[in-house]
Amino acid sequence: MQDILPQIRERLENSQELAMATVVRTWRSAPRPVGSALVVNDQGDMIGSVSGGCVEKSVVNKALKVLGGEPSELVHYGVSNDDAWEVGLSCGGKVDVFIERFLGSGSEQEQALWQQLDQDLANNRGVVLAREVGAGHRQFALAYADGSAVGELPDAIMVAALAALEARESRIMESEGGNWFLQVFPEKPQMLLIGSAHITSELIHLAKLYGFATHVIDPRDTFATKTDYPTEPDSLTVSWPQEILPNLTLNANTYAVILSHDPKIDDEALKILLRQPVAYIGALGSKKTHAKRIARLTDAGFSDDELGKIHAPIGMPINARLPQEIALSVLAEIIKVKNEVPA
Amino acid sequence: MQDILPQIRERLENSQELAMATVVRTWRSAPRPVGSALVVNDQGDMIGSVSGGCVEKSVVNKALKVLGGEPSELVHYGVSNDDAWEVGLSCGGKVDVFIERFLGSGSEQEQALWQQLDQDLANNRGVVLAREVGAGHRQFALAYADGSAVGELPDAIMVAALAALEARESRIMESEGGNWFLQVFPEKPQMLLIGSAHITSELIHLAKLYGFATHVIDPRDTFATKTDYPTEPDSLTVSWPQEILPNLTLNANTYAVILSHDPKIDDEALKILLRQPVAYIGALGSKKTHAKRIARLTDAGFSDDELGKIHAPIGMPINARLPQEIALSVLAEIIKVKNEVPA
Repeated sequence: MQDILPQIRERLENSQELAMATVVRTWRSAPRPVGSALVVNDQGDMIGSVSGGCVEKSVVNKALKVLGGEPSELVHYGVSNDDAWEVGLSCGGKVDVFIERFLGSGSEQEQALWQQLDQDLANNRGVVLAREVGAGHRQFALAYADGSAVGELPDAIMVAALAALEARESRIMESEGGNWFLQVFPEKPQMLLIGSAHITSELIHLAKLYGFATHVIDPRDTFATKTDYPTEPDSLTVSWPQEILPNLTLNANTYAVILSHDPKIDDEALKILLRQPVAYIGALGSKKTHAKRIARLTDAGFSDDELGKIHAPIGMPINARLPQEIALSVLAEIIKVKNEVPA
Repeated sequence: MQDILPQIRERLENSQELAMATVVRTWRSAPRPVGSALVVNDQGDMIGSVSGGCVEKSVVNKALKVLGGEPSELVHYGVSNDDAWEVGLSCGGKVDVFIERFLGSGSEQEQALWQQLDQDLANNRGVVLAREVGAGHRQFALAYADGSAVGELPDAIMVAALAALEARESRIMESEGGNWFLQVFPEKPQMLLIGSAHITSELIHLAKLYGFATHVIDPRDTFATKTDYPTEPDSLTVSWPQEILPNLTLNANTYAVILSHDPKIDDEALKILLRQPVAYIGALGSKKTHAKRIARLTDAGFSDDELGKIHAPIGMPINARLPQEIALSVLAEIIKVKNEVPA
């Protein structure tokens, strides 16, 4: 749904009544992942997609009925091989699509919930939109990582919502009181780039492509501002790591890449990052450079266990030579760490 | 130099006299790689770069002297840490820059050589521009993978040129008769994508970013033409692999990715690719799918050695989930194979 947010906002501002169809479950090679959404106004104009063309016509018809006052509906679509061939999709997928009046076109209470969700998304705050998927049911709530919620939801659903948020994965929760769809809008992962250089520039481009918010930190004004960024980082702070890092949220959503080549900068960043629960710390440099770094940090009181958290040599071993290739190896390693199932 | 080719062509068409400065050797973290070029006209207007701003002023002054009739010059620049800090570059790099009248502004013979080189580059034909780098010397030749040459060059230099082309790496060849700079313009690596799908689309975008020419082959018209390509492939052929592959050049510059999910298509591609000297064959699918594939191809007469060439499961092991992540894992594996030093 996030991909069509700007268009949803525009239509709501123009007072259009909207219905929304959401992929809530998929089997095999379904064309669009869980959470994909299609929004329809009372003219049948569509934004977004639930299947890449395969079942959209049927979905729009049902959405128009919902806008006409009929209850919400959970519809199962099987995509036969023959159909799949016709519409250019992978073969044999199946999807469940929930079709309902859109939250922001609902009751006053629902509209307030939408305002809150919309604001959370704008602020990159992780949130779960939990809703009951059943004919005519209208139960919604928002759940947050700190255990707080807006709206009412059963305890078991709250627990499941927090698990879904942790796993960054939207899913159906089947329960006795009714099935709930837990739609996760995770916080974007944050990439900290300590040091501004060619590799920084290449990595920003790739990382943004893969959904990371990118933050460059370099105290050297000329490096920070004269580096050529064909893709601009989300933020660029001309500051020493020890000045700025203590003010940032450093958590399991943080991926730090140490790139400055200057121990005066890199070491200070590591001293802070190594004692925060960040997901990833990778440091550029040869084995020799890293050995010297380990010696300095050991002298500074860091244990082998702590220093073992540093990925060095950085990146997946792909024989990278060019800065662009090193950036690829680093992003690949970060995706690997990001997707590791916790033991 | 290839990055500024269009502007070079335009200036030559406007009958501008041009000098060119080329990075022919680097030490440590030089700001621009070997082969980077800066072209200057008699007004001192620059295109391209040899250092990202650090030594350009000096280079332009020398280029203007060359345009005024002074001999070619090989200049050594050391970039001190202090300088590097000032201009926003990595610290401590050193570069050798060769400054000369540009080939296309030279004698009639030289201009003819430039026309040939320009045509080779337009046709994506691998070529080495060999030239003597010494004060006032004007010796140029082109060398090709098949051992042919345009212009005169000593046997030892020809051998070195072919090695440089094979390694896809520009370099200086020191010889008794004078030092030669072997500037390699390698053929773009070719990526064949068998089957048009979500992953195909993601892989095209990444592969083009990394300098690959991308060719999609899929006999299923609807798949081939209805897949959403935010980045267009270089070519798209609606054809069975067994119809088109025999007409293509399949060599050490070819990287093949098997993606259709349909054995009728994938197997036919593999039967051809497995017996050609391609650099890489990767095939999508689970271990179970691949085991079935191996069984079918064994029945078709392929040996274990031959089948061992297939990279499957495809891609670097980075816990890829989304199509975009699978594409990343595949490109990472391809870069790994591409950069492997031949034993």
